[in-house]
Amino acid sequence: MLTEADRPGPPGTTLFDSQIGLALRRWCAPALDLPPHSDPETYLERRAELGHAEVHRRLLGASGISTFCVDTGFQPEPLTCAEDLAAFAGGRGLDVVRLERIAERAAVDVLTGQIGVAHLADTVRARLAERTPSTVAVKSVAAYRAGLALPARRPTDREVAAATRTWINEIRGGAAIRLHDPVLHSFLIWCGVEARLPVQIHVGYGDADLDLARGNPLLLTGLLRAIAPTEVAVLLLHCYPFHREAAYLAQVFANVHLDLGLAINNTGRGSIGLIAQALELAPFGKFLFSTDAYALGELFLLGATLFRRGLAAFLADGIDDDAWTAADAARIARLVCADNARRVYDLR
Amino acid sequence: MLTEADRPGPPGTTLFDSQIGLALRRWCAPALDLPPHSDPETYLERRAELGHAEVHRRLLGASGISTFCVDTGFQPEPLTCAEDLAAFAGGRGLDVVRLERIAERAAVDVLTGQIGVAHLADTVRARLAERTPSTVAVKSVAAYRAGLALPARRPTDREVAAATRTWINEIRGGAAIRLHDPVLHSFLIWCGVEARLPVQIHVGYGDADLDLARGNPLLLTGLLRAIAPTEVAVLLLHCYPFHREAAYLAQVFANVHLDLGLAINNTGRGSIGLIAQALELAPFGKFLFSTDAYALGELFLLGATLFRRGLAAFLADGIDDDAWTAADAARIARLVCADNARRVYDLR
Amino acid sequence: MLTEADRPGPPGTTLFDSQIGLALRRWCAPALDLPPHSDPETYLERRAELGHAEVHRRLLGASGISTFCVDTGFQPEPLTCAEDLAAFAGGRGLDVVRLERIAERAAVDVLTGQIGVAHLADTVRARLAERTPSTVAVKSVAAYRAGLALPARRPTDREVAAATRTWINEIRGGAAIRLHDPVLHSFLIWCGVEARLPVQIHVGYGDADLDLARGNPLLLTGLLRAIAPTEVAVLLLHCYPFHREAAYLAQVFANVHLDLGLAINNTGRGSIGLIAQALELAPFGKFLFSTDAYALGELFLLGATLFRRGLAAFLADGIDDDAWTAADAARIARLVCADNARRVYDLR
Repeated sequence: MLTEADRPGPPGTTLFDSQIGLALRRWCAPALDLPPHSDPETYLERRAELGHAEVHRRLLGASGISTFCVDTGFQPEPLTCAEDLAAFAGGRGLDVVRLERIAERAAVDVLTGQIGVAHLADTVRARLAERTPSTVAVKSVAAYRAGLALPARRPTDREVAAATRTWINEIRGGAAIRLHDPVLHSFLIWCGVEARLPVQIHVGYGDADLDLARGNPLLLTGLLRAIAPTEVAVLLLHCYPFHREAAYLAQVFANVHLDLGLAINNTGRGSIGLIAQALELAPFGKFLFSTDAYALGELFLLGATLFRRGLAAFLADGIDDDAWTAADAARIARLVCADNARRVYDLR
Repeated sequence: MLTEADRPGPPGTTLFDSQIGLALRRWCAPALDLPPHSDPETYLERRAELGHAEVHRRLLGASGISTFCVDTGFQPEPLTCAEDLAAFAGGRGLDVVRLERIAERAAVDVLTGQIGVAHLADTVRARLAERTPSTVAVKSVAAYRAGLALPARRPTDREVAAATRTWINEIRGGAAIRLHDPVLHSFLIWCGVEARLPVQIHVGYGDADLDLARGNPLLLTGLLRAIAPTEVAVLLLHCYPFHREAAYLAQVFANVHLDLGLAINNTGRGSIGLIAQALELAPFGKFLFSTDAYALGELFLLGATLFRRGLAAFLADGIDDDAWTAADAARIARLVCADNARRVYDLR
Repeated sequence: MLTEADRPGPPGTTLFDSQIGLALRRWCAPALDLPPHSDPETYLERRAELGHAEVHRRLLGASGISTFCVDTGFQPEPLTCAEDLAAFAGGRGLDVVRLERIAERAAVDVLTGQIGVAHLADTVRARLAERTPSTVAVKSVAAYRAGLALPARRPTDREVAAATRTWINEIRGGAAIRLHDPVLHSFLIWCGVEARLPVQIHVGYGDADLDLARGNPLLLTGLLRAIAPTEVAVLLLHCYPFHREAAYLAQVFANVHLDLGLAINNTGRGSIGLIAQALELAPFGKFLFSTDAYALGELFLLGATLFRRGLAAFLADGIDDDAWTAADAARIARLVCADNARRVYDLR
């Protein structure tokens, strides 16, 4: 679970021979009472000895994160809910609703005859309208399915109906219940916009299941231009290696934001350079912290530690060079590490 | 006017929360007799108090730029001419002719019956031939219109005639007088080549009106290969975030050059990294200084200051590391800051 | 031969006004008994005085390379064979077989009537099977021909036969004997996979003959996904400016590796930044040293010196920052500079 690879590396190499592996040994070992840089075997033994609950309490607690906005829509494994996850750190858990999952559940309702195929779109809209008070955003994983070259304007009811019929027929013909039509992905994003919920979009970096070329955020330019007048916040997640492109979009569209998510963990100490590059163009009010942590408590602590260190290095370099003041740096750190998220997700 | 965004950012954020905002407070405040890092309100008050003529005299004067090559073809606002602009700094003003504007003026002549549609191409050629002695280059903004995937070989007269008729018919049908046909953009660039004027091409970074993916300079590869034998200089402007790609083109094509224009201002202190990346592959005789300054005097001072500091940091790092000598560094600085432009634009 | 340009730069500039030119003066002059940073004239005089055999003995000897894996398939010039090349450094020479050359030789056999067109594919397979013991890998230059958007799955015999007939007919119609069909490039790569030889693929940076946009390694994603289950090693060569994309592929596919080849030499001191960026995501067991040196002995010494310095700088920065230990750094250096190549190419 430590990297985006889906099988082990070649013989003679280990998962720990990577930036994230070195970062784990440096930053997570002390949280388990081991010296920094402990070797993998020692780390894994101590981890097993403490047990997963204690390990997660320590790692999440040491992350210093107090509010967790969590997408629990990944399938097929059932995931810890946001509230239980946050409890490891004594924090608050809030929900991010995965749009494709809402649609896929509605597809099951069509297949089991509970609703007609013509009502799938309305069912999706209704479920987003019925959301719980803990829902703070929606999320699209179109990058993994159809890619980001989505129709720019909101699809018409007729287009949505036709794409829905095609999709349901595919499933009836034996295909997996996996939404992958550009019109439907665009429809879902527009549903989020209409519900006036911040829309998170997976961009760039991910696992081997992805076609990274189709995850370039510039492919979203037309759609972002169409959404801009609604002023609903859009959040481009991860973005690597297209983080400069994402930062450009965050500069020119008032409602677009970005984070580096997954890329911070995986690039380890290299994340210092990524943060500096994202902040070449991204306004400081548009750049957010995130970990994209999943499955391993280590990813929360690494995401938080590496991000803080990278942002601190960026800000300290500018102070040393008299490019900005310590007061400017403190204000930027507050925006990026907390206030931007409070504003975008309307956290009180 | 300070960034490429076309509307204000979210509530609670300001335009000054960005690299360019911090750079302005650092470097422009002293030119208005204020301490470095003055807050935005103080800066704006002092700026209003001095009045725009005095502000521009100070900011352009402090930039140290002596020769201004200016594209005054941006529409619809009338712009200060090159000569008047240069006068603020006691310098010399020279003209860069925007190719699309020449064609759009000829289109007006067609529409008002002054010339026949079949004569638009010849009229464009004639106007380029009649240029004033102060004209040093032409410029294409195809990146904003059709994108840079332009026909590589010079369009035939028949192709130009057909594209012209289509365009004029569109305008007669109610479209804006805005050239946007790849054949006509390519034709215009070839007109510049035939007139043996250096051809500037907007590449990469710009405002929200742009589709940045279509501004990748690698899309120009075929056209550059076709132009290469003419030995007419081509200048790729701005280029971010495709500056490495542009530098590659400047290495492999003897007549291709690049600058970072707009990206220097907007990335503030981050521009140090951009300059170093452009100079990974770009020969030192192919990299030029520019500001792309427009509307605000601050952009001239920032462009010049940040570029000098970034280039100086790049050169000093190499001296410290014994990678090159101080004499090498001085020679490179002269090429990049002055001699390359003198050679390309034939400035005496 | 020092850069990827195919003609001299503009008047008043020299080839030495570049990162690689400065690096040559810094690092190669001492190997010819000259002071570091000697001027180009002095260097060229001394080089002529020593003669090419002595120059190559010194430059290759000083590189510290002991095993040379060499693609000698570049045409039309006859190249020094791997064994003779290695002898300059007292090292061992091993062969990398250029796949397109094997196919082009088989095409000549078809044209001269030695084999039927229907037997070209089998002839290619047979020649790969008959390879000498010194053959350690195959190499594809599809990037220069059809680009990297190759068919993902292995072409069927019928598809290969049809593409072969078309190609042979083109040659009979007067075209050069130059394989350039995506189906045939994919077929050749699959031949390498079936022969269980490591497959090198030229990616990204090269000379003006290349369409760099078609050299993006992400275009290979589907093909790499199809090859992954075979566990045959794939090596992405050069990769610049797509080295982050290549490193991503090396992270997510267990059999994919990368080097920076040509880009190390050409970016001179700038190569420090490239190495750090490649190692953001690439597992340390997947990143290899190479020089891509060709024609000039200088390129061997520069490739080796710049790579060692860049990797050392990367590793030392992490030690200084307590991100990893000196023992970790030593282990990573051994993997990258020797053990990864030993494992991939099965060198004893």
